[in-house]
Amino acid sequence: MKIDILTLFPEMFGALSESMLGKAAEKGILEIALTNIRDYSTNKHHKADDYPFGGGAGMVMMPQPIFDALEAIGAQGKRIVYMSPRGHILNRDKIEELAAETELVILCGHYEGVDQRAIDYWNMEEISIGDYILTGGELPAMILIDAVARFLPGVLAGEESAKDESVYSGLLEYPQYTQPRSFRGLDVPEVLTSGNHKHIGLWKLEQALLLTKARRPELFEAFVRAAELTKDEKKILQKIIEQDGHTVY
Amino acid sequence: MKIDILTLFPEMFGALSESMLGKAAEKGILEIALTNIRDYSTNKHHKADDYPFGGGAGMVMMPQPIFDALEAIGAQGKRIVYMSPRGHILNRDKIEELAAETELVILCGHYEGVDQRAIDYWNMEEISIGDYILTGGELPAMILIDAVARFLPGVLAGEESAKDESVYSGLLEYPQYTQPRSFRGLDVPEVLTSGNHKHIGLWKLEQALLLTKARRPELFEAFVRAAELTKDEKKILQKIIEQDGHTVY
Repeated sequence: MKIDILTLFPEMFGALSESMLGKAAEKGILEIALTNIRDYSTNKHHKADDYPFGGGAGMVMMPQPIFDALEAIGAQGKRIVYMSPRGHILNRDKIEELAAETELVILCGHYEGVDQRAIDYWNMEEISIGDYILTGGELPAMILIDAVARFLPGVLAGEESAKDESVYSGLLEYPQYTQPRSFRGLDVPEVLTSGNHKHIGLWKLEQALLLTKARRPELFEAFVRAAELTKDEKKILQKIIEQDGHTVY
Repeated sequence: MKIDILTLFPEMFGALSESMLGKAAEKGILEIALTNIRDYSTNKHHKADDYPFGGGAGMVMMPQPIFDALEAIGAQGKRIVYMSPRGHILNRDKIEELAAETELVILCGHYEGVDQRAIDYWNMEEISIGDYILTGGELPAMILIDAVARFLPGVLAGEESAKDESVYSGLLEYPQYTQPRSFRGLDVPEVLTSGNHKHIGLWKLEQALLLTKARRPELFEAFVRAAELTKDEKKILQKIIEQDGHTVY
């Protein structure tokens, strides 16, 4: 997958080369190309923003440098995403859809956003990572790329699958424990060291159900409606539905 | 405000020094201290993670390096946030609440998360930036810091206020336009260059309402219930409620 990023702050994307994404780039699974929008400004001071028409606080990114930068990278006909709090909220469906593309262009806005003519003319798809306001689209673009990359074949290690991850499976994740078995008097739950895989599986499900019911009741409801469970699993679910749930969280 | 970040990848936070947040640091409004959890591992190879008890894919961060790192920075009694898809979804209320703190500690997990004993013992507050899975908590921590910093006095320019920003005001933002007035045959909407501030204000409201109704009907409903509007504004709202809205977006 090739991702073109248009930004005024290309240096921010150094964070992407760390960790798993750097490895995906090395393996040739993900290629990221950075374009500095400012380089395409025809203004002698390389200005890329100006005051908004109709007044209001802040600055707006001008259409000219964006149009020229998009043409320079050959964005015509490609899917162009604009990171914006006005967009559709990022979720699993959108992430899977984007992961199926071979090419993607991401525009990062800054200040009060970009001139609407750039969004309209280039038929940009606006995506929001959540209902909060940030200084620019750079961090959201990295969030999008990280989430999408996990669905690309070869990025996650062999036994892992992005689809099986918590939240995407419909429940919040059960608590995790690792070494040592006893740390400062705090012990790992006995069932996890029992070696009884059936009990362990049921414990994990119970914990995930309890957490989800307490913290995200809307996810819990959706899970109850859609889940296909074994007889033992159904018993656990029924017990949790009948609890008033006040002991959790 | 002082924010301590505990992470296995401190280099990723270079992205924070760019742009507005770098200025906030220079002005002394926001101080960010990075701690590499790995430095506190008592393992001779500085190992910070191990296999999960009870099986399952991936690795889990061990309690020992986290406990020791938290004690080393004096985290006892401080508010500790753990970035996690299991957490409460970040929103304006949580952002304002965090911005009122003078000290904050943020733990960034990696791999399959951290040992539950660290979360429980340190009474960590789990916060999620959205329903998607990422490689680590570093990008989410930067998102949180950016959103919170905008509420700190002196970070935004004089006339701007984080509370007035789109989404936080309950509506998606109206389209923005800047120079030039005509670009490749695409013109700025006439009303914005009319100089009639009343008309401009009503146009902006109308556009924000149309966009919100089309893209985020749940926000639109909430706005309709709570909004205090003038007579002219009410007329616009009524017209939009009566439209079937199929022309927008």
